[in-house]
Amino acid sequence: MTAGFSFALEASDGAARTGLVSTPRGDIRTPAFMPVGTAGTVKAMLMSHVRETGADIVLGNTYHLMLRPTAERVAALGGLHAFMNWPRPILTDSGGFQVMSLSKLRKLTEDGVAFQSHIDGSRHMLTPERSVEIQCLLGSDIQMQLDECPAIPIAEDDARSSMLLSARWAERSKRAFEEKSASGQALFGIVQGANYEALRRESLDRLMEIGFPGYAVGGLAVGEGREEMFRVLEFTCPHMPAGKPRYLMGVGKPADIVGAVARGIDMFDCVAPTRSGRHGQAWTRQGPVNIKNARYADDPEPLDPDSACPASRDYAKAYLHHLFRAGEYLGPMLLTWHNLQYYQDLMASLRGAVREGRLGRFIADFKAETGESVV
Amino acid sequence: MTAGFSFALEASDGAARTGLVSTPRGDIRTPAFMPVGTAGTVKAMLMSHVRETGADIVLGNTYHLMLRPTAERVAALGGLHAFMNWPRPILTDSGGFQVMSLSKLRKLTEDGVAFQSHIDGSRHMLTPERSVEIQCLLGSDIQMQLDECPAIPIAEDDARSSMLLSARWAERSKRAFEEKSASGQALFGIVQGANYEALRRESLDRLMEIGFPGYAVGGLAVGEGREEMFRVLEFTCPHMPAGKPRYLMGVGKPADIVGAVARGIDMFDCVAPTRSGRHGQAWTRQGPVNIKNARYADDPEPLDPDSACPASRDYAKAYLHHLFRAGEYLGPMLLTWHNLQYYQDLMASLRGAVREGRLGRFIADFKAETGESVV
Repeated sequence: MTAGFSFALEASDGAARTGLVSTPRGDIRTPAFMPVGTAGTVKAMLMSHVRETGADIVLGNTYHLMLRPTAERVAALGGLHAFMNWPRPILTDSGGFQVMSLSKLRKLTEDGVAFQSHIDGSRHMLTPERSVEIQCLLGSDIQMQLDECPAIPIAEDDARSSMLLSARWAERSKRAFEEKSASGQALFGIVQGANYEALRRESLDRLMEIGFPGYAVGGLAVGEGREEMFRVLEFTCPHMPAGKPRYLMGVGKPADIVGAVARGIDMFDCVAPTRSGRHGQAWTRQGPVNIKNARYADDPEPLDPDSACPASRDYAKAYLHHLFRAGEYLGPMLLTWHNLQYYQDLMASLRGAVREGRLGRFIADFKAETGESVV
Repeated sequence: MTAGFSFALEASDGAARTGLVSTPRGDIRTPAFMPVGTAGTVKAMLMSHVRETGADIVLGNTYHLMLRPTAERVAALGGLHAFMNWPRPILTDSGGFQVMSLSKLRKLTEDGVAFQSHIDGSRHMLTPERSVEIQCLLGSDIQMQLDECPAIPIAEDDARSSMLLSARWAERSKRAFEEKSASGQALFGIVQGANYEALRRESLDRLMEIGFPGYAVGGLAVGEGREEMFRVLEFTCPHMPAGKPRYLMGVGKPADIVGAVARGIDMFDCVAPTRSGRHGQAWTRQGPVNIKNARYADDPEPLDPDSACPASRDYAKAYLHHLFRAGEYLGPMLLTWHNLQYYQDLMASLRGAVREGRLGRFIADFKAETGESVV
């Protein structure tokens, strides 16, 4: 158990849970959605507004930060929290997923992955030890082990080899973390095994033997579709330790989140609200809005007149439409803000529903409002 | 005199003045700097933050707004104040200057100027009457007459013909304004005449005969250089009525403003703080900062640790440098905010210096800090 880091389950409703992750930098109410702050900024947002939406924690991307401005520079400037003006918890990924999706000339070995930067072509080596070292330089509160994250579909043999490599990297990550981390920081292990039940079980068993204060489900939302993702969660979550937080990496759209909470997940991250916001897509309780659509050119109504969020409440859709048509900064700024508020409101509603034992009703209402079934 | 619109001079120091423009939507402390909100948004800013910097009034561009989203649409949505979420005074220009600089296939006649939109090629006609009509549809508190704004140098004969056209348009503008405007709105006349003393006097005399609640000096900052601009102000301002606000259009950099205040100007607008901010240029009390310069990559100091503005105070230069290098929205957002705060702080300091009769000392200090002489 990591000193200063803890998880307390408060209530459950079926497989769904609500609770509190405590860290020296503040508490995280679960189920939690972590806005993505890739390069030390939640794109187009002030961190004070990110906080006002209700976010308890944000995510930083090790791959981007190690390349620019570099982890060493961030450390010299006082760490990622000071750098980006966010005193609350930060989770960083290991960098592995984005090395595989963004970098050039990757070479994967037992030791780690060698690659060239997509920014300037410089050569780097990311090992389990180096990933932990970088995350410690950044000063992140929740760190992730380096893993390999294959796409689905994948043959079972290949999926098992990959999962075993990730398990060996989990052990090396933990050793490095025990050497380098500060008090109160936590390292999470990542369950792999594609969509094979036996492999997910084996992965989880190996990780639990190593022992982590939290467990992530990795390797999902990689093209398998929502139903298949839910199926994997259904045969994985029940075996995860109830007393530790469970983090579903890179997920997702609102319906993905509602369905995953119903299956026992506690933490989420996704670029959907921020990226969609920059492209003029808004989530609302009346369904999705593509603000660039001509139908909004004369619409005097705001995205949500009842919201406490200025972006949702204080601007006519016609104005937002105009901002996107004119290519103004304020369009992405306001729609990102609105979407993050929508996500945090969704998480607050989910926590309330679980606490009060009415998640089934919540899911039925969600389907009635959005047309999306998550059972 | 327009009902509900007034100007009270509070103090003067040499030719410099400080006072208060009162409008039904709020007061404007002079000397005043008006941030430019071209297309219904001060680029990359929330209007609540624009207000927090100390701005009493912002400027909107008739040319941009008439083309997109159109003045009729803004009117149907409740006017420009509601549209852009700014309940305080708005000044709009006439559209003439930007027709000449941005549009295609312009044709200037006695009646007005025909042009094609730079956005979609659509054809439009801007006359003195149509400009006032648009400004009334937008609901702007201070409106500007349509004028012609020739570049300097220009032959005296040509400058006089142009000035006389502007004077005839002033008269037509006033007639249209008296028909269409709402109570408390004001229309300003614009003094033209290039850098010819006799023409500036004649222009002013003609405008004063028509009678306006405020007078602008137009046709400067068009390539004539700072010294020449100051020379024109020196032979123009003393003849402008002391009891009416004086607005120097499209000016300027901080040294331009300080020098123009010393010569009797009360109101300014310029894209410099916002445009420069988007391009990584900051004004500081220690001189200009190009934040993209490699020298700031490791600089832990903020742009101004003593500022009340979060953008100036709460972010290391190294972080701002990183944001610009990474092409993040937050870089332009923060530097624009910082620059607008710098400008409003400058205006507040100028008002204080004039009120306390120490403008000479202020100008000497300004020269010592920035190296720029404005006498």
